[in-house]
Amino acid sequence: MEEELKEVLKELNSLKQSFTDPSHRAPIDKIQLHVERIANLGNSGVRRSKVKDMSAEVVDSNPYSRLMALQRMGIVENYERIRDFSVAIVGVGGVGSVAAEMLTRCGIGRLLLYDYDKVELANMNRLFFRPEQVNMTKTDAAVQTLSDINPDVVLESYTLNITTVQGFDTFVSSLKNKSFRPNKEGSGVDLVLSCVDNYEARMAVNQGCNELNQTWMESGVSEDAVSGHIQLLIPGETACFACAPPLVVASGVDERTLKREGVCAASLPTTMGVIAGLLVQNTLKFLLNFGLVSPYLGYNSLKDFFPTMEMKPNPQCSNGACMERQKEYLILKPARDAAAKAKMEAETSLVVEAPLHLDNEWSISVVDESELDKVDAKTSDALPDGLIRELPSADDYQTQPNEASASSNIDDLEDLRKQLEALNG
Amino acid sequence: MEEELKEVLKELNSLKQSFTDPSHRAPIDKIQLHVERIANLGNSGVRRSKVKDMSAEVVDSNPYSRLMALQRMGIVENYERIRDFSVAIVGVGGVGSVAAEMLTRCGIGRLLLYDYDKVELANMNRLFFRPEQVNMTKTDAAVQTLSDINPDVVLESYTLNITTVQGFDTFVSSLKNKSFRPNKEGSGVDLVLSCVDNYEARMAVNQGCNELNQTWMESGVSEDAVSGHIQLLIPGETACFACAPPLVVASGVDERTLKREGVCAASLPTTMGVIAGLLVQNTLKFLLNFGLVSPYLGYNSLKDFFPTMEMKPNPQCSNGACMERQKEYLILKPARDAAAKAKMEAETSLVVEAPLHLDNEWSISVVDESELDKVDAKTSDALPDGLIRELPSADDYQTQPNEASASSNIDDLEDLRKQLEALNG
Repeated sequence: MEEELKEVLKELNSLKQSFTDPSHRAPIDKIQLHVERIANLGNSGVRRSKVKDMSAEVVDSNPYSRLMALQRMGIVENYERIRDFSVAIVGVGGVGSVAAEMLTRCGIGRLLLYDYDKVELANMNRLFFRPEQVNMTKTDAAVQTLSDINPDVVLESYTLNITTVQGFDTFVSSLKNKSFRPNKEGSGVDLVLSCVDNYEARMAVNQGCNELNQTWMESGVSEDAVSGHIQLLIPGETACFACAPPLVVASGVDERTLKREGVCAASLPTTMGVIAGLLVQNTLKFLLNFGLVSPYLGYNSLKDFFPTMEMKPNPQCSNGACMERQKEYLILKPARDAAAKAKMEAETSLVVEAPLHLDNEWSISVVDESELDKVDAKTSDALPDGLIRELPSADDYQTQPNEASASSNIDDLEDLRKQLEALNG
Repeated sequence: MEEELKEVLKELNSLKQSFTDPSHRAPIDKIQLHVERIANLGNSGVRRSKVKDMSAEVVDSNPYSRLMALQRMGIVENYERIRDFSVAIVGVGGVGSVAAEMLTRCGIGRLLLYDYDKVELANMNRLFFRPEQVNMTKTDAAVQTLSDINPDVVLESYTLNITTVQGFDTFVSSLKNKSFRPNKEGSGVDLVLSCVDNYEARMAVNQGCNELNQTWMESGVSEDAVSGHIQLLIPGETACFACAPPLVVASGVDERTLKREGVCAASLPTTMGVIAGLLVQNTLKFLLNFGLVSPYLGYNSLKDFFPTMEMKPNPQCSNGACMERQKEYLILKPARDAAAKAKMEAETSLVVEAPLHLDNEWSISVVDESELDKVDAKTSDALPDGLIRELPSADDYQTQPNEASASSNIDDLEDLRKQLEALNG
């Protein structure tokens, strides 16, 4: 609108030039002043200017004072490091948009946003997007809002579908780009957050991250809107998304009441806000090195129950890149273990001293690595209560094919998708 | 800005009228058209108009389709009832503003907002407020944003401090006002959410709600930003805020590292977003009658640990209104129990079948009423792991006075405040 008003000012000026009589020019001058005032109105709010260095100074005008206080409180050793980090968010919907806003307000260095969808009024029951943004792409609308909130964050947006060949290639290239921090090891981003709403897109993120040896976090909310989960995936070290059928949180609602044919998924700003909050909290813990980063954390909102577990990679995973990462991980394991031990010793005062929920009714535990064999992908038929598989395991599937897909191949994504649609709670 | 542009159009019109020569009028016509186009630009986004009835129709333009889907999914019996409800939110800060936005997007009938503070850049590390709203009152800024998001919600804002005599009176009067739903039983609101950041304000909410026999929910986030809680308070039935020293979630951070003198509290959009999400989720469950409404739910973000417990009222509570509600509750108990039993039987298919976390390492359990004597305010020295008291209990306090406050009276709010400041973690 500012640009448009500048055009009007130019037009008024031309008009004024066409007169020599001051009595004709005076009223035009007046109108010009009025339009100038309106043009400035658009800027009259205290616009947030860029901040060169994060300061801990306790003044009302400092947007970072309450974050830098985390250092003085002994929670984070060096908060300002957040400006070095790049986070990619795939899917800017009910979870991804809120995660992006949280990271923006936390002063993350760089955000990469991926989505192909447009904002609709039907999205207004979730946080972030506003009715006046309807028909904008979600990426454009997000950049508009986020750059107003915090101009210090470097925003890159990609309006694409990562499940297409071209979209996937652009996605992988963008993750490789190291221009933001040329001396960074590995890829150009520190973490990928998957905030998509379908299986194919998750598999695409999984493929890209396995190829790049890129740590990522997956998030999801159930179709009935009342449960969700987050999961940490470290290629070679944890189960990848193809290692085992994904786990979801059982909502406890009778599955038979879920009429799937032609029914749109329900969603709530509460569940999605909680999942986005848990996801970004784990992101901050991962990046800034404090607290315990949950390997898997579920949220059953009907019972206010939060199951957690760990999953080891499947040594027979169908994903080739995952198998390569597993081999590398085994080779580097001694060095890693030593580093992890040193890190753990340094953090002893901050992290959990005892396993969580050990021997409880739900059989949920945070186990140390020696115990992991019990709960790995191949032997975890006894899942913690409250967690169910989205799909049958590959083994079950191959040994007990059902009628509907007896002839299909486990590698066939389209069939997996159909199964998911048929089975997903 | 629209009004301003209309003024410019009037001025251009007067200017045009001062000329009779068409060659002079033509360029002014052109400028008028340009300004008209700009004036319409401000409205060019799809502005959300009011929606008379909530529809479940699955079209992109329906802002309620994903919420009404909760009915077809079997989660909520009658979602549209949400339009009958009034919720009061005291404190429109990092938790209250997000709670207000969630309820607004869920299509709540009426929101009452209370705050006396102004928006500052130092608030930008939490969700909701935008930099261009700096220096507006939080209530005005909230009404601006919320009415844009959902014009169907009736918004009432009160720019006041409820800890002042006048503010408290206005607060209580506003809760009593039944003009929104004249035939409602009890007060004029269905639930009060306390989203304040200090002890006095919580005690004021507690006093008002005890006097009005008003169910409310309390929320809080720790000064180190990494833990928080929500709590359900039903006068006479559960512990009131004065019945026992309030419980908070231990963050596990060494308290000695918390330098309190002159240090501003830390805050994170993640923790506050999670607490707001849990609070509004419990609000929806309470209002729309689904799932289990948690009596107390904590969030320790460093460990991703969520303690829960129940607290019975203190039969020696210092709050007179609480004691009256306790007496009424005992008299009405048989009738209530019968109603609760009938309600529970009707909901059997939706709610938790077994106590949560029974016999687990953390000793946290959802117990039935017969077991409650074990954990009531007078005998709950053995708190669930992860929960600590904000203050010593009244008994401890009176039998073991410490040097700093040996002569003070437990009823003296100022002394309690000082104690809180000295002890609160």
